[in-house]
Amino acid sequence: MAASKPAIPKGTRDFGPDDMVKRNYIFETIKKVFRNYGFLSIETPAMENLDTLLGKYGDEGDKLLFRVLNSGDFLSKSDTKVLSEKNSAALSSQICDRGLKYDLTVPFARFVVQHRNDIQFPFKRYQIQPVWRADRPQKGRYREFYQCDVDVIGSNSLLNEAELLSIIDKVFEQLSIKVLIKINNRKVLAGIAEVTGSGDQLTDLTVAIDKLDKIGMEKVKEELLSKGFSQKTIEKVEPILIFEGSFEEKLNFLKKYLSTSAIGLNGIEEIMKVGEYSSKMKIKSEIELDLSLARGLNYYTGAIIEVKALETEIGSICGGGRYDDLTGIFGLPDVSGVGVSFGADRIFDVLQELNRFPEGENARAKLMFVNFGEVEANYILGIIGNIRDAGINAELYPDSAKMKKQMTYADANKIPYVALIGEEEMKNELITLKDMKTGEQVSATLDAIIKKLS
Amino acid sequence: MAASKPAIPKGTRDFGPDDMVKRNYIFETIKKVFRNYGFLSIETPAMENLDTLLGKYGDEGDKLLFRVLNSGDFLSKSDTKVLSEKNSAALSSQICDRGLKYDLTVPFARFVVQHRNDIQFPFKRYQIQPVWRADRPQKGRYREFYQCDVDVIGSNSLLNEAELLSIIDKVFEQLSIKVLIKINNRKVLAGIAEVTGSGDQLTDLTVAIDKLDKIGMEKVKEELLSKGFSQKTIEKVEPILIFEGSFEEKLNFLKKYLSTSAIGLNGIEEIMKVGEYSSKMKIKSEIELDLSLARGLNYYTGAIIEVKALETEIGSICGGGRYDDLTGIFGLPDVSGVGVSFGADRIFDVLQELNRFPEGENARAKLMFVNFGEVEANYILGIIGNIRDAGINAELYPDSAKMKKQMTYADANKIPYVALIGEEEMKNELITLKDMKTGEQVSATLDAIIKKLS
Repeated sequence: MAASKPAIPKGTRDFGPDDMVKRNYIFETIKKVFRNYGFLSIETPAMENLDTLLGKYGDEGDKLLFRVLNSGDFLSKSDTKVLSEKNSAALSSQICDRGLKYDLTVPFARFVVQHRNDIQFPFKRYQIQPVWRADRPQKGRYREFYQCDVDVIGSNSLLNEAELLSIIDKVFEQLSIKVLIKINNRKVLAGIAEVTGSGDQLTDLTVAIDKLDKIGMEKVKEELLSKGFSQKTIEKVEPILIFEGSFEEKLNFLKKYLSTSAIGLNGIEEIMKVGEYSSKMKIKSEIELDLSLARGLNYYTGAIIEVKALETEIGSICGGGRYDDLTGIFGLPDVSGVGVSFGADRIFDVLQELNRFPEGENARAKLMFVNFGEVEANYILGIIGNIRDAGINAELYPDSAKMKKQMTYADANKIPYVALIGEEEMKNELITLKDMKTGEQVSATLDAIIKKLS
Repeated sequence: MAASKPAIPKGTRDFGPDDMVKRNYIFETIKKVFRNYGFLSIETPAMENLDTLLGKYGDEGDKLLFRVLNSGDFLSKSDTKVLSEKNSAALSSQICDRGLKYDLTVPFARFVVQHRNDIQFPFKRYQIQPVWRADRPQKGRYREFYQCDVDVIGSNSLLNEAELLSIIDKVFEQLSIKVLIKINNRKVLAGIAEVTGSGDQLTDLTVAIDKLDKIGMEKVKEELLSKGFSQKTIEKVEPILIFEGSFEEKLNFLKKYLSTSAIGLNGIEEIMKVGEYSSKMKIKSEIELDLSLARGLNYYTGAIIEVKALETEIGSICGGGRYDDLTGIFGLPDVSGVGVSFGADRIFDVLQELNRFPEGENARAKLMFVNFGEVEANYILGIIGNIRDAGINAELYPDSAKMKKQMTYADANKIPYVALIGEEEMKNELITLKDMKTGEQVSATLDAIIKKLS
């Protein structure tokens, strides 16, 4: 067979040992916090039936689904006309029944409905798995990437929103990333539309103001005009967008502004309640009320949450909100949920940029025995088990290669200590331990070495 | 939209919280041992280019690959004749460039070749990821399942074989599964073929004797006859297959039997060396020399390893061996490797059958606060952080639902302790703690509760 030139599909990645140590650090930190708050893990298959996925992400989303070809003679039942016309779109639905999951949310909804009789509600689940999108690859956007979702489903209580804010606070504290947590509420947005007389154009309104951060006030106004909003409406909206003040001040301003909108006032109440719970929980990160925050408005029905890293220019690293009818599409209506998703790739970039990854000692060998030959290797086999059993990751270089080669291996693999055992050491039952950073060498007994490295 | 009936593709599985706790226990145990022996983690994408996968698993394997449809107008460049003939096989290679990975071995070989300039050899890697096969689903056989592979590549040393046996021993000791480790060596099989004058039929010979366990001696003989082996050859082979004895006795018998075969004697030497290393490492599991063990002979070139659970009828739960030219198919010849793969699904079944799963406390909430209402919930929010910060997984039931409902939740989620805080408790700064197993209740301070549950 001719040797094929090895490569991987565009937009996908290999993760070598160094990346894996860092990625696992992120995932393990997040998981530990999720568990600490009583969330349970689930996993769903990579493939879902296409009828589970189609129609859930809009037309654009449907196009980004990776479809899996049916096995065997997949063309046997396909339409001859579709084939002769080379109608790709029509054929794809005849030859593919399955696709790769596009996110964790729709499979989770499917999971909840399918297993509703086995689930104890409220259901607090987390899920950390890869998802796939046939998007055009670009810097920071991949065709395979992990999502880390945490949701509570089957409870209307605003305590859940506060718990999620506390989880966010804790995760980023443990990762040593300073963040700003922005919150908003869909009901407040609905109230603004109501009092400005644009209730029927809620989507257009929020899509426009969601861009405030990026394009500025003048452009937002232009967009609103182009969408048919009257000058009068725009003048009514502007004060809200330019109002600056503390969390309290914003709320007081809003209360007056939305005094004629029942849904708006309800949104304010929700924000206040979540704020109150959050302060009880001693959340350390700053929480900002950002009225321009919308994040896929058609999806969220209450709280909207987004997290920004304060020390870098990288955008949102976590986000989510409350949704009221996720499972309705699968025939189980009136189940409210709230959740957030952590962006592992962006968190990776932030930690990399700020140089805040720890050394990752537990994931690497801490000690390497140099291999001087058969006799020494046999001797080492008799003691290396004691070191490993003490929880110290250790290895014996498998070949009696040149010293330089063995040292290069230890260096490249970031192994902090190297043990040398020659004739002298065996005779005296000692181990010579070299600190790879300082170059310092000491001779000590096995027990002393174990104690030192534990 | 009409509600679709939720289901997942045939042969795939959802893993709910109970399964996940158990699966994570298996994966975490295995990972910890791998790291303890100095192995590093890598991950490769779910999708590989089809030219990486095709031709590596035989014709049958090629048919079992899940192919991913190209995006966009995938038919535009397809052959009109192929379409009009409805030639599925020919079309699939025109409309699919990628497939889901079938195992971890071929992607690993591709990884090694692609990143050979960044890798420090010997490369000790482990990889725990799902793979996909369009196999007919049946009990214990899935279309998506995890493989846990551990390999050393770029070292000929037999120390690696011994390390892998030690890893196997340690993994199953920690999982509380008693195992028998069977070993063999491809060179010994080649030697047997040589001395029996059937060297050109090595594959047929070993395929037949590999079945000894399952079909018995008479059927093996029948198969050999049908494959054209002479009665004389079969008579020469039989003594080896029926010989019973200790590891030593078998080796001594073999030494005589293979005395005229250089490759056979080399195989014996390798087995002896690995045995010697293993006894130095104090491996506790029994190691048996099984001359009928072949496991995909065309692949392995030296050691062959297989592990059986002793207390159940479930077959092999781990297996592997040495291969000498894995990376050759991608243009990097002469890189020897040795590795084993742990069968997570079968290990799961063994632990389930023997009822040896631990309770999985760290992955669940240990304490649930009952929610009696707004005042109590607010009080609890002020103290639950102290409990969580002490590393105790804890939650507050989010709604002030009926006591029975809250208790059912704690029960269903296997939460061992429930905390009750009412008016009285708040006044006295006490927490009433209920042990869900014994029903026992005690009142204590926050500090005392933390101490008790830590």
